[in-house]
Amino acid sequence: MIQRHRQSGESGELGDRAGSIRDIAVAARAAARIVAKASAETRTAGLLAIADAIDRATPDILEANARDVAAATAAGQTAALIDRLVLDTRRVAGLARAIREIAAAPELIGRVERTEVRSNGLEVSRVRIPLGVIAMIYEARPNVTTDAAALCLKAGNACILRGGSEALESNRALLAAVQAGLVAAGLPAETAQLVPVTDREAIAELVSLEGLIDLCIPRGGEGLIRYVAEHARVPVIKHYKGVCHVYVHAAADEAVALRIVENAKTSRPGVCNALETLLIDRAIAPTFVPALVAALGGTVELRGDESVRTFGGPSVRAATEDDWYAEYLDLILAVRIVDGVDAAIAHIEQYGSSHTEAIITTDEAVAERFVREVDSSTVMVNASTRFADGGELGLGAEIGISTTRLHAYGPMGAEGLTTTKFVVRGSGQIRT
Amino acid sequence: MIQRHRQSGESGELGDRAGSIRDIAVAARAAARIVAKASAETRTAGLLAIADAIDRATPDILEANARDVAAATAAGQTAALIDRLVLDTRRVAGLARAIREIAAAPELIGRVERTEVRSNGLEVSRVRIPLGVIAMIYEARPNVTTDAAALCLKAGNACILRGGSEALESNRALLAAVQAGLVAAGLPAETAQLVPVTDREAIAELVSLEGLIDLCIPRGGEGLIRYVAEHARVPVIKHYKGVCHVYVHAAADEAVALRIVENAKTSRPGVCNALETLLIDRAIAPTFVPALVAALGGTVELRGDESVRTFGGPSVRAATEDDWYAEYLDLILAVRIVDGVDAAIAHIEQYGSSHTEAIITTDEAVAERFVREVDSSTVMVNASTRFADGGELGLGAEIGISTTRLHAYGPMGAEGLTTTKFVVRGSGQIRT
Repeated sequence: MIQRHRQSGESGELGDRAGSIRDIAVAARAAARIVAKASAETRTAGLLAIADAIDRATPDILEANARDVAAATAAGQTAALIDRLVLDTRRVAGLARAIREIAAAPELIGRVERTEVRSNGLEVSRVRIPLGVIAMIYEARPNVTTDAAALCLKAGNACILRGGSEALESNRALLAAVQAGLVAAGLPAETAQLVPVTDREAIAELVSLEGLIDLCIPRGGEGLIRYVAEHARVPVIKHYKGVCHVYVHAAADEAVALRIVENAKTSRPGVCNALETLLIDRAIAPTFVPALVAALGGTVELRGDESVRTFGGPSVRAATEDDWYAEYLDLILAVRIVDGVDAAIAHIEQYGSSHTEAIITTDEAVAERFVREVDSSTVMVNASTRFADGGELGLGAEIGISTTRLHAYGPMGAEGLTTTKFVVRGSGQIRT
Repeated sequence: MIQRHRQSGESGELGDRAGSIRDIAVAARAAARIVAKASAETRTAGLLAIADAIDRATPDILEANARDVAAATAAGQTAALIDRLVLDTRRVAGLARAIREIAAAPELIGRVERTEVRSNGLEVSRVRIPLGVIAMIYEARPNVTTDAAALCLKAGNACILRGGSEALESNRALLAAVQAGLVAAGLPAETAQLVPVTDREAIAELVSLEGLIDLCIPRGGEGLIRYVAEHARVPVIKHYKGVCHVYVHAAADEAVALRIVENAKTSRPGVCNALETLLIDRAIAPTFVPALVAALGGTVELRGDESVRTFGGPSVRAATEDDWYAEYLDLILAVRIVDGVDAAIAHIEQYGSSHTEAIITTDEAVAERFVREVDSSTVMVNASTRFADGGELGLGAEIGISTTRLHAYGPMGAEGLTTTKFVVRGSGQIRT
């Protein structure tokens, strides 16, 4: 059996030792037991203390981040990676503000979801409880470190964070602030721990620790997700890529469609809810494709099928089969003509990543059919795919967007880091 | 990419071919797409047709079952296994009746769980949808074949069933009736398929099929669960053992406690919600242990620690450390004296299986503490552990009892075989 109880007085040291992955997980399990029993007030105090600690540690955090950015630049990393990696005073203040918002959000733990009194007098409730120990595996964004630690604490969990090697110095500095806040609130420092090494073998060991890890959330590209899936013996919720589609139906308002396409593609092309493939109904293509080329052709590289190139002219590059699978995360858009809503749905089924799809139409019956038959985690009518985000959809801060159908499908907030148990209150009932 | 679309005209043949496991899963994926879009009326008609087909096929089912029972008897299987395996006219009628009850239960698919209109006018809903393809891996009970097929169909899923070798003939006969009912309702026969081989390699292949299987539910003993966890690359919800505890607190009504202990241990000792370890508060032990021995000593083998044997006399056998971990599934009870509620909770944390625990007390504050701090999937006050059951707790028929914290923790009914997606309805909103 694993050692499940530790005295909280032992806290604060283990985060500094470069112990084995198993030691980290054992300490996380012990911390999780304490955090699960901590009051909402204590957890809230912890969150506020973490935000304060981040504010105070801003110079250290920026210095550590500058070292990461210098190393990434010297290593010839892409501008997109460096943009995700870099912190400045404003961004660090944003990290602290996000944690204060999480602190202010409604309490989840102990919430009674349903209650029913059975005919034999038993009162049956479902009560929201923490999941336990969450392992978060991610890449170059240091903001995930504080967001994940804060959301896990909000939900009464301990977390083990394994960020990318490019952000290791930044993550160490951020984690030091997180642990300082935890200890200030009387919570174990091991409530949030960082895996101090970034080799892949550490991931393999971490995700094999059945009984110590209750959920692993990999958030990143195909290689990372595949590696975790291959090695995991603990439950995994993947936060995988977004090959998001907009389908412009024959009965679309073309001006609305153009505005949404432009927003979905260009407002932040590097994120997972950005548009990647545009499907245009053949009936509307003769007018819509030229309008698209005129509106976006200057800023976005369009890659179309033969029909798109016929209507769009020579500035549209020829798309290949690979383009339909592509998550560009860049100012590139795949464009295809489809014959009606069935063909649009079939394309999304074949090439999509179950993330977010939108239909633009004024025909409500067609919209409802699209909503019913597309089984992606977020399906939209006449709105930009960029709204597929926990904050925008009313969840508050998000830990990411799950493309796993189980437990939490789509944007995943603090509630996705909890579960429910059954509580049954009786007066001596027996089963006959 | 996998082949996601098949014509339903191709149905009905694949179940008869002993194709590869992958072929079965590809066919299940195609069937799942059709069942997910089928109306509630069609799925209900399918369930009723399955129940009728089982009624009609009763002679075939009993004949096949007799072959299984004869083989199991010849192989020297235990009486407990044969009891789980054997069907008779009454039990087969019970299978059909259970399916009619599932048909009559409220519809789940398309149910809107939450709706909110955001300040920008976006209407955000969560809508209940099927999970997709469920792989159910179980042992000798043939009733799981029809229960699982019916619950999966109710929830709009396809299922792949891999029962134990001892029940293979019974399962084939039952599955033939299930498929006859599906086809009669115009649904693909591959909505429910049986893996025609029972070697372990077939399980390993099945649970590795990422992208084809959305959820695997292993239900059985330690060896099966461990094997699945080792080989799975698809999400797994374990239905593992029940080392259920009753804690008799110092302030218990002793008559209530005795009645509950007797019911929890003896009403059906071979099931997972039966009592396995009884924890008795030291304060009440001098009176309660002798009463326990008097009441149960004749029918139940008691295995106690030194204090239990002091109060209970020589009929109580000495318990070893292994007894605290044991799921006897038999008329054996481990008994331990504990010093108060903290010690009871600590024992459950260390030795329990996260299934079901009960406290017997008249002290409400202590009861609430036990309820809050024990993190098993079902926690009870003054009631028998035998109520930990989907039907008893108001879920209707159950697919089993999950000991995995994710998605569905505790008794798992049709709703546990669904998930939700976000549906966002707008009028041209873009994200600024």
